[in-house]
Amino acid sequence: MTPRPRKRNPKTACFEPAEFDLPGYLKTRQTEVDAALHGLLPPVGRFPGKLLAAMRHSLFSGGKRLRPILVLAAAEACGLARHRVLPAACALECIHTYSLIHDDLPAMDDDDFRRGQPTCHKVFGEGAAILAGDALLTLAFELLAGSGLRQRLRTARPRPGRAAAERQLAALELIARAAGVHGMVGGQMADLEAEGQAASLPLVQFIHVHKTGKLMQASLLLGGLLAGATPAQQRALAVYGEALGLAFQITDDVLDVVGERARLGKNVGKDRQAGKATYPALFGVEESRRRARQLAARGIRALKPLGRAALPLQALAAYVVSREV
Amino acid sequence: MTPRPRKRNPKTACFEPAEFDLPGYLKTRQTEVDAALHGLLPPVGRFPGKLLAAMRHSLFSGGKRLRPILVLAAAEACGLARHRVLPAACALECIHTYSLIHDDLPAMDDDDFRRGQPTCHKVFGEGAAILAGDALLTLAFELLAGSGLRQRLRTARPRPGRAAAERQLAALELIARAAGVHGMVGGQMADLEAEGQAASLPLVQFIHVHKTGKLMQASLLLGGLLAGATPAQQRALAVYGEALGLAFQITDDVLDVVGERARLGKNVGKDRQAGKATYPALFGVEESRRRARQLAARGIRALKPLGRAALPLQALAAYVVSREV
Repeated sequence: MTPRPRKRNPKTACFEPAEFDLPGYLKTRQTEVDAALHGLLPPVGRFPGKLLAAMRHSLFSGGKRLRPILVLAAAEACGLARHRVLPAACALECIHTYSLIHDDLPAMDDDDFRRGQPTCHKVFGEGAAILAGDALLTLAFELLAGSGLRQRLRTARPRPGRAAAERQLAALELIARAAGVHGMVGGQMADLEAEGQAASLPLVQFIHVHKTGKLMQASLLLGGLLAGATPAQQRALAVYGEALGLAFQITDDVLDVVGERARLGKNVGKDRQAGKATYPALFGVEESRRRARQLAARGIRALKPLGRAALPLQALAAYVVSREV
Repeated sequence: MTPRPRKRNPKTACFEPAEFDLPGYLKTRQTEVDAALHGLLPPVGRFPGKLLAAMRHSLFSGGKRLRPILVLAAAEACGLARHRVLPAACALECIHTYSLIHDDLPAMDDDDFRRGQPTCHKVFGEGAAILAGDALLTLAFELLAGSGLRQRLRTARPRPGRAAAERQLAALELIARAAGVHGMVGGQMADLEAEGQAASLPLVQFIHVHKTGKLMQASLLLGGLLAGATPAQQRALAVYGEALGLAFQITDDVLDVVGERARLGKNVGKDRQAGKATYPALFGVEESRRRARQLAARGIRALKPLGRAALPLQALAAYVVSREV
């Protein structure tokens, strides 16, 4: 007797979550990243104390550590032990945190709460918040260029292709591009400019791809690059990363409409109040969710060349579109 | 008959400006740096237009290009043709410009004018100014890690010591440290915190060394490092750079007291109004000038191991303390 096909979860379509313990995986990785981040900054009390306190406040206010986990997972999917790229993973969390601090400023999105905590400028003042963001962005590049990462890469089993220092430089250039005027910062500028304007699909996609997508995709490519990934592996990560970033941001927009303040830890419905260009504003909640799931499925399919080593990335894509926080 | 000793300029003590055409030297270098900076950003009109316009506004508002010129001069003093390090020189100007944009914000020093032009946030709004600073800082690291610099270093006559990629990574780490929480950003935080407090020499020195000195010193060490300088050469540049940075900032403070708004292009006397910790507030104008000249002389002496190749750097130190703008 042939077994009956198992009932598939329509939310995740081409992925079977039972195969993989994602919550356990995420918890381990979050703990590793948190420990590494704690070691980055000198203990509180050292000069300049207020700046370090402001950096710590935002770095440890309950982030999911998604971007660093993507760096670790991509490196592992391409055969490099994850501790080898841990400083690079921390760098991505520093960049993400700096972008949140600056986005929350009164001159930008003017948010008082983030992840249930008062935002950096509410606690430390605007001047300190601007500088804490600046310092975190600079720290990210110090980590990416640093001798700590260099040492970890140099002592790894030799990888095919370029030497460790060359890979590190290429990784730096990749991240700077994804974070800069043609990436994340450009996306935030477009988002600022779009407020109050009629939303169109090309504009919303431009903002999502640049503000969120580029850095998420770059996290994956960074892991692959440092691991000496083949061109086919990097292409797979690029397609997956693009789909994941857009799916993530659409889900964020949906949660802004349907979520509860208590669960998300930030003011919900702010996007609509601000007249922000979002997917739900264009297509409604259900169609937006459907598109996010479609994107996740496309990303999961793209991972095929990486085989079973990419299982965590598959599970992550399914999680990103089904999450409720 | 032996010639009578020439009368020495007491302002510059151990340096004879007649030996060297500094104005001509500065003009050539400024033109080279300006041309390279113009090539960095896509033409106006490209997306995101307002962000690019804000970056351009501050990058081309009449800066002296001192930091990039220090990079070029240090590389030449250590035997590397200056066009080899031009992208790194541009990166230093981007970092300097970003720091000015953020320092001028209402939440910081709240300045409406800089170099005779309205400041970035006055023209483009606070949000765009914050993002323009972020984008310029990120662009600096893209340039330092970039394949443009890599190519220029790789095709140069081989230098002693480390390979080009290793030198580039070390240079990146050096700049990130000098610009970050333990360098420039830390100095700006201390400056913010010090407003209205009683000034003490250790505090004023901390602020000057961190806010201005570290990045100036790093500009010199960057040029040396990329040129494959010997440890003795790097030590000479380090001592010179530290003295130059402090001398420069003391002179800035003096000019804030005695300068005229029209000549400096910014509001004069602001430091005193803001209760800022400065040298003139501690020692008066004349003693401050004397200390600046002493520092310049110390810097010039330190350059001895570099020989005549360091003539431009000597002239620069003399200029920095005698300038009136």
